[in-house]
This record gives sequence, structure tokens and C-alpha cells, in this order.
Amino acid sequence: MEIVCVGNELLIGKTVNTNAYWLARRATSLGIMVKRITVVGDNVDEIAKVILEALKRKPRFIITTGGLGPTFDDKTLEGIAKALNCKLEVNEKALKMVRKKYEAYVKAGRIEKIELTPARVKMAKLPESAEPLPNPVGTAPGIMLNVKGTFLIALPGVPSEMEAIFDESVAPLLKKEAGNVVFFETSIYADSIMESTLAPLIDQTMHDNPYVYIKSHPKGEEKKPHLEIHFSTTAKNSKAAKKRLEKAIIQLSELVKKNNGRIKF
Amino acid sequence: MEIVCVGNELLIGKTVNTNAYWLARRATSLGIMVKRITVVGDNVDEIAKVILEALKRKPRFIITTGGLGPTFDDKTLEGIAKALNCKLEVNEKALKMVRKKYEAYVKAGRIEKIELTPARVKMAKLPESAEPLPNPVGTAPGIMLNVKGTFLIALPGVPSEMEAIFDESVAPLLKKEAGNVVFFETSIYADSIMESTLAPLIDQTMHDNPYVYIKSHPKGEEKKPHLEIHFSTTAKNSKAAKKRLEKAIIQLSELVKKNNGRIKF
Repeated sequence: MEIVCVGNELLIGKTVNTNAYWLARRATSLGIMVKRITVVGDNVDEIAKVILEALKRKPRFIITTGGLGPTFDDKTLEGIAKALNCKLEVNEKALKMVRKKYEAYVKAGRIEKIELTPARVKMAKLPESAEPLPNPVGTAPGIMLNVKGTFLIALPGVPSEMEAIFDESVAPLLKKEAGNVVFFETSIYADSIMESTLAPLIDQTMHDNPYVYIKSHPKGEEKKPHLEIHFSTTAKNSKAAKKRLEKAIIQLSELVKKNNGRIKF
Repeated sequence: MEIVCVGNELLIGKTVNTNAYWLARRATSLGIMVKRITVVGDNVDEIAKVILEALKRKPRFIITTGGLGPTFDDKTLEGIAKALNCKLEVNEKALKMVRKKYEAYVKAGRIEKIELTPARVKMAKLPESAEPLPNPVGTAPGIMLNVKGTFLIALPGVPSEMEAIFDESVAPLLKKEAGNVVFFETSIYADSIMESTLAPLIDQTMHDNPYVYIKSHPKGEEKKPHLEIHFSTTAKNSKAAKKRLEKAIIQLSELVKKNNGRIKF
């Protein structure tokens, strides 16, 4: 799977990319591996280029976030249409979803009348053959396309909307694709040992536990080394995964102690 | 400029990518535009591919973060060497930096003796013709290479180390490249107006203020719209930048009021 985040606010350092973090975490926990995350600005050509490059790598899923709203610089669907060399056209199903939202806004007294202005219709203009995904908490629908075996999914950039559409329409698809695969992770902490001393011990443990991935993350300051050691594995069931991690943790803990390090769980 | 972040922890959603945020913010404030951010895992082939792709786009700067440490899965320099089709070799200047750090660690009583183990020497094995950048707060030096006009800069993934090397060795270079260009930004907030109503007003204001970029960000919940409206511009001096933003803010504020919206500064 690849994630594509669209938004100038990410490139100027106005916004921390918590959407990529959330999507990566959810996909991983569902058993789907994320191979790349790309961030581009609100520019049709750039978006189209990034989508085309991602499609060439033939991932099973590409999920984009951002750029689906009513404003001029919401350009993701235009970018996707350009990448696929197809047109944007008003999708009747999507237009119904948008109209229904504005009916609700009128009832709630937020607007006076349902007026499908160009900015509002824009949210229902989808690339040909795209399927709209209902937005349970906002206005702009997500979209899904199947491009030669790759599911290309576009979600809004507002976190609550992205998460709601993902949970309702995307997660079941990912879960199905992953089958019974589960992802397991856990961390232990080491003190009184330097990362460079720990490095060959991790190598040895990973060599002896070929399905376990171990990575150290320095957490302390210069003066007092405090290392997080993160263990993860993907397995066919959670019992197998747990057993694997336990074996690796025991081995590495003993190696650390032999090197005068202290382990904290 | 492009940013490349290396680390499985970013792809499994273990870590929020605050490094990309910090770098993007700093580069932008120095007057340098970030065009793309790419995140890849700790995999030599993937890193090499991403570096090669970025080099082909000929940005003035590529800054990588992560993967410079002593452990087996710190693979960024290997990836860069593969992309440039060159060897990794012990760089004497870098080795001196690393040795000096371990001398200090011995003095501080953190290790018993200076032993340049393979894991420690690894941090001084740089791609040929790379220049090491001193690490004021950690062990692994950063590196800098000039590849046909692109400065390829690799920084560690530990935020304090990345930031310290950037401030000491990279920021002056970016500042020089940007010349007198300054980036200015500010936000105002709008209530009682929907984003789809605001959209054409932003379009009009951007049309009348061609050097000002305006983007709305929904902040409220479903029930009560609260929109952040972000204004930014890049100009030759701060007086010109401020004047431009002011003019755009006044115009858009008046348009919002005419549409029954409320503006908060």
C-alpha cells in the first residue's frame, strides 16, 4: 500500500502530517504493509505525477488524503483524472450525497436554502468510473477506483472525515485483502548501554529470529542513554506472533544484561 | 527542495513524522520552497530508488533524515551510495569526529574504553566525496554531497541531532540560496459561513491578489462551522510581504461579512 498526502500546508510546515500516521497505523494493524508515503502540494500536475508513479509500482492500494473539498485549491480529483487521462463528470450518486448533506444543513438552520453552487457541485465531480464513498461526518464524499488491480482511494484531509470514511468503507476492504495476517508489536527499554554496543546484539537476535524485526530508538539525552527497543512481526495468528516476539525479547534481554545494560519492560 | 524520511517506524505508524514538519517549517521560513516529502522504509533498494527519483527532478536541495546510526538497519548511506553508484569508505574526517565523541563518553564514564567496534566505525563510512557535517549533540555525523548541482544532505533521525546539524551546517546554505526572499503567513478565522460559501470568495481574493496564497481549513465540528483562513506569500522584503497580506485580508474579510459570516482575528 502507498499513501499520498496532498496539501501545501504539509509542505510549508504549517501542519504535522497526522493523517499519514493514522492511516499507516490503521493499515498496519489490519495486516497491510505501507511501503511509501508521498506528500505533494495543491498542484494538479504534481498530484497527477505522484499518482502515476505510484500506479507504476503496482501496489494493491493507493490512499490519498486531502484536496476533496469545495475550494479552488482542492485539486486531488483533477489530479487523479489527469493521471488516468479521463474526465471529471458529475456523478449522480455523489451529487445525491452532497445534496442530502445540504438538506440537513438547511434543517439545522446553518444555511437558508439548498443552493447547489458550483463550489458545492464540484465535490460531486468525480473521475469517470469512480465510486463515491459516503462521508458520515462531512460533505465531500471519498472516492474509489479500480485501476488495473490497484484500488485508488481518495479521502478528505479533515481528520474526522478521513477516519470516518476509512472505517466505514476502506477498512473492510483492507481486512479482506490481509486475510488472517496479524501485526504484533511491543517495546522494551534499555539503560546503561550505548546504541553502538546494542547494535551487534540486535543483529544477532534478528539473525536467530528471522521473522522478527527489531529496531532501536534513542530516547535519552546525550548524558544518559535510554533506548527504546521495538519488536514487531507479522504472522498468521496472534498466538504465533506473540510466541515469536517473546523468544526474541528473552534472547536480546539476556545479551543486553551480559553487556552491563539494564532492561526495563 | 525535497525531503526524504527513512524509517520503518514512520510506515507502520509508530512515530508521527515531526522531522518532516520541522524541516519543512524551517526551510520555508528561510525562503526555500519544499516541493515533495517522501517516506520510505529501512531498505537499501527503496532508499536508492527514492534518491534517484528525487535527483532526476533536479531540486537544489535533497535533505534526508534517519538511518545514519550504528545499527544494522541504519541504511541511508548505503542507499545513497547505491543511488550514486559509488562505494562507502571510511572517511578520516568523519572517523575523527566519531572517535572524539567516544573519548568524551569515556571521560563521562559512560563506557570503559574507546573501542572503535564495526558498529561505531560504520557511522564514519561515507559515500566517496561526501563531506561529514559535525553532530553537536550526538555521535553520527551528517553528510553533504554535491551531485550535479543538487546538494544531497543526510541528517540523523533523532530530532535533537537533526535539528542541531541543520542549524549549524545546513541553514546558512539555505539562507544563502534564498537570498533576500522572505516567507510570511498569518491566519484569520471565520464563523457562521460554510466552506462551500467561502470558496468563491477566496477565489476572487486570490485573483485580485496574485502573489497571495489563501487556503481554508475546516476546524469546527459538523454542527458549527469554524474555518481557519491561512494567508501566505513570499516576497523580496518583509514590508512588501506584510502589505500584500493586509490588502488580501481586508478584501476577503469584507466579502465574508457581506455573506453573513463573522471574522475573528
